[in-house]
Amino acid sequence: MRRLELIGLEGIGEVVRGDSVGGLICAACAREDIALLDDDVVVIAHKIVSKAEGHVADLTKVQPSARAVEIGRQLDKEAELVEVILKESRGIIRSGGRALVVETHHGFICANAGVDQSNVGKNIVALLPKDPDGSARRVREEIRDQTGMQPAVIISDSFGRPWRLGTVDVAIGIAGMKAVKDERGLSDRYGYQLKAAVAAVADEIAAAAELVMGKRGGVPVVIVRGCEWEKEVGSVKDLLRPAAEDLFR
Amino acid sequence: MRRLELIGLEGIGEVVRGDSVGGLICAACAREDIALLDDDVVVIAHKIVSKAEGHVADLTKVQPSARAVEIGRQLDKEAELVEVILKESRGIIRSGGRALVVETHHGFICANAGVDQSNVGKNIVALLPKDPDGSARRVREEIRDQTGMQPAVIISDSFGRPWRLGTVDVAIGIAGMKAVKDERGLSDRYGYQLKAAVAAVADEIAAAAELVMGKRGGVPVVIVRGCEWEKEVGSVKDLLRPAAEDLFR
Repeated sequence: MRRLELIGLEGIGEVVRGDSVGGLICAACAREDIALLDDDVVVIAHKIVSKAEGHVADLTKVQPSARAVEIGRQLDKEAELVEVILKESRGIIRSGGRALVVETHHGFICANAGVDQSNVGKNIVALLPKDPDGSARRVREEIRDQTGMQPAVIISDSFGRPWRLGTVDVAIGIAGMKAVKDERGLSDRYGYQLKAAVAAVADEIAAAAELVMGKRGGVPVVIVRGCEWEKEVGSVKDLLRPAAEDLFR
Repeated sequence: MRRLELIGLEGIGEVVRGDSVGGLICAACAREDIALLDDDVVVIAHKIVSKAEGHVADLTKVQPSARAVEIGRQLDKEAELVEVILKESRGIIRSGGRALVVETHHGFICANAGVDQSNVGKNIVALLPKDPDGSARRVREEIRDQTGMQPAVIISDSFGRPWRLGTVDVAIGIAGMKAVKDERGLSDRYGYQLKAAVAAVADEIAAAAELVMGKRGGVPVVIVRGCEWEKEVGSVKDLLRPAAEDLFR
């Protein structure tokens, strides 16, 4: 029987600038008596990574540009918040209602460049890590140094979607695993060669982990055990659709 | 510790028109010695539901219209397949390359109206169920009648996404659970009132289940145990963004 298990890691506590996220995870695992395995995937809410890296902004210290003021007025958003979002973005993809959908410098297309006001502190916003694959690799190395094990690592965030309501978590940084599971060319039980069989397995793992994390903090790390995935250096870039092939920007 | 478990149900075997999907699930659970619980979510690949409902099409019996022939020529797709896709659609949202993104009669926006050639049989395609919420409710009643338990039921399919590569499974039919987890208005640990905290929990459960299902058949049903969700009649309609609020159609 194929079984998959997700274990929410509580008790990580408050993360501050300079913390080793891998070290905090290993300490929490030790307290909970969980031995990490090479075949596990460790999913981490980006917010604790951004906090540890000091990649946050204090809105009371932001001087909004005229453009940020104007966009803020149109979308009923704080000008200081808009200024931070614009700084994190390559360009605006769409805006309307209260929504500001941008392409980040990493190439993610998402609302508000992932700039997030929850679970950070008064007037403080968390930005996405500057190099999320690099952050994931660093956490993976910290875990290896402390335990000898090398689970895959995914850094996740909650993204909205066109056409469908509600957010679903996706991978924004990956280390140690192939981002997709590509079964094209294999045959189904009727001999039909699969054509569209590329699953975004890292995104599905992030979505699954969110079911355990929730949105109110307290469970920023989830260990996914029993999932099939391929070992590889891995990068979230393998999940980004090239602009030239995209019908929606 | 918060734990979530996913159990793949093998041995469902070939599903044919007229089969009771709920009955097949109960029989497979009995063989595997799994007792379903009220708090479980049973995720079912839409394909076995479509087969049981006879909602498939034989491409050798389809007469393509001139429009289907023309679109097929432009997109390098079989005209008969395009004809079936157009019949399942309210309208075309975008086309280009080899992609045909439509709005189905249910209101789903997806590639090829969900018409699927894999795991069905030579020249046969599976369509999406006509009323997927109704199908989910029927399976739920069959399970209740046979076991006395009323787990939630999700019917799933693999959807592509704009901007990101690879498919992720989403819910296309729901019974017995609220589609979203709405934490807006609650406070985070810093007293910040959550604003964007609506998770598409049914979609995240479908995505998680796909990690166990895979694309090559054999595991069309996954039992999700230990997940937090709200009991409600439930409908996938609660996941569809109204056209007037959508920036991408």
